[in-house]
Amino acid sequence: MILTVTLNTALDITYRVRSLRPHAEHRVSEVVERPGGKGVNVARVLAALGYEVTATGLAGGPTGRLLRDGLAASAGVTDALVTVTGATRRTVAVMDELTGDTTQLNEPGPHITPAEWSGFLRAYDALLPDASAVALCGSLPPGVPVGAYAGLIRVARSAGVPVLLDTGGEPLRRGIAARPDIIKPNASELAELTGSHEPARATRDARRRGAQAVVASLGPDGLLAETPEGRWRAAPPGRLRGNPAGAGDAAVAGVLSALVDGRPWPDRLARATALSAAAVLAPAAGEFDPAAYERLLDEAAVTEEDPAA
Amino acid sequence: MILTVTLNTALDITYRVRSLRPHAEHRVSEVVERPGGKGVNVARVLAALGYEVTATGLAGGPTGRLLRDGLAASAGVTDALVTVTGATRRTVAVMDELTGDTTQLNEPGPHITPAEWSGFLRAYDALLPDASAVALCGSLPPGVPVGAYAGLIRVARSAGVPVLLDTGGEPLRRGIAARPDIIKPNASELAELTGSHEPARATRDARRRGAQAVVASLGPDGLLAETPEGRWRAAPPGRLRGNPAGAGDAAVAGVLSALVDGRPWPDRLARATALSAAAVLAPAAGEFDPAAYERLLDEAAVTEEDPAA
Repeated sequence: MILTVTLNTALDITYRVRSLRPHAEHRVSEVVERPGGKGVNVARVLAALGYEVTATGLAGGPTGRLLRDGLAASAGVTDALVTVTGATRRTVAVMDELTGDTTQLNEPGPHITPAEWSGFLRAYDALLPDASAVALCGSLPPGVPVGAYAGLIRVARSAGVPVLLDTGGEPLRRGIAARPDIIKPNASELAELTGSHEPARATRDARRRGAQAVVASLGPDGLLAETPEGRWRAAPPGRLRGNPAGAGDAAVAGVLSALVDGRPWPDRLARATALSAAAVLAPAAGEFDPAAYERLLDEAAVTEEDPAA
Repeated sequence: MILTVTLNTALDITYRVRSLRPHAEHRVSEVVERPGGKGVNVARVLAALGYEVTATGLAGGPTGRLLRDGLAASAGVTDALVTVTGATRRTVAVMDELTGDTTQLNEPGPHITPAEWSGFLRAYDALLPDASAVALCGSLPPGVPVGAYAGLIRVARSAGVPVLLDTGGEPLRRGIAARPDIIKPNASELAELTGSHEPARATRDARRRGAQAVVASLGPDGLLAETPEGRWRAAPPGRLRGNPAGAGDAAVAGVLSALVDGRPWPDRLARATALSAAAVLAPAAGEFDPAAYERLLDEAAVTEEDPAA
């Protein structure tokens, strides 16, 4: 199975309002709740593709209960989340009906005690032997050591399990030193890590810092991959309109699914591009339009770049 | 005991952010959850003043459970809420650290079935004989008939229990025809009811429409009361800085507490003004600063107006 790790799971709440105006009162016309957090989204996409997938991480409180109920309802994801005392955070996305734009409010997450963190590490150790790949995704809740991902990467590498890291800031900076097989930063995470806003330069720099392969998700510009086998750009056939939330998580699912199938980098990137685009066309993070995915898989343009460029 | 009715209870969530910008992503630095809904706030203020108070209304789901846990933790309010299947709504207040201003997002509330509404009416009938006064507060959740308050007012009047109505829009328009003892509209509710933005004219018109007394809460301008015993203005000693959420609910608690104590209108308005001001000085709705209340009770200016003016 593929293992996804979400240390800061979330109950994703979407509010529809006519138009968000600061300091005004708004009547919410529609409320949608879904299980969330990057790794949970990755797991839901993988399950929808038919892969055996287990979601671990931390969840607790009434919001954690709602998250797990939602996960049980979305068939195919094995729930191996570790229960904590604090309540799983909410993330609130406020969608303007007039513009379709979204305003995001992210709670910090529950405080994790040292005993809870130790409990998670034991669960992770027990899950790893059955994993064909592991994805470490998202922010860290308060109380989890900032070097957490570095430790999880070392354990996975010792167990011979390929590991992908998708996070930002200091957790990425610390994690990359433990030599993950793949990192998947977005443009701003990559710039923050390397100090460079030039993606080709920044992805090379990120490899020098320890990542064996770097798949940068550059929004409408598609993906840029810097790997031991070569450098590729991958892009959907045209501009997409929709909800970009979860597009990066779908890209992670695409890379991982092709990796466990033993497919080379161009296939991994084609899947990531097609899934990412199909996720933009779906209303919520963790979901994608399957018909669009099949079509886009044929249409995704993956081109190798001159390594000397 | 004083009975408060909150048909659309709420889990009040306050988010602190640096500055709310539409279409951006925000990290919430602090999350506070409290039991809410206007009648619940009134009950919490009355309990803090030492009055015996029972809160009824409708609550359900995980948010309803959190609401009731919070109510149990705030000593003195008897929980007589009727459990429904749908989940109690959340209201999210986003507070800007830079300006102190608040952006409010209110969920609509759960759908109430006819059987659940009948169940509430039976509970209300059973509670009324022990009530010295009843406050009907706030919006109606989906499924509750828009004329609900009119029915509840008639039952209270038949039982000889004084009834205060604090709502707006069509529920106020329908409710007022059932001749409540007191209504407490704010400026915009009063204008919507009467079509007049001139408070003195609008309060008189509201009495003609059926309210026996009208206490209009006019924000920083204090209260204007139009009653069978006379017309009064009441105002705090000066401008207040703070959080106006819950100031109207504190005013309702002030009026009701003095009413059940058999005090005349000037005393009711002094308490309402002082509590309302002390609520502005407290961080959250349903709370007030007790020391400020005692001081402001002496300082509140209640002046009778010429009925011919």
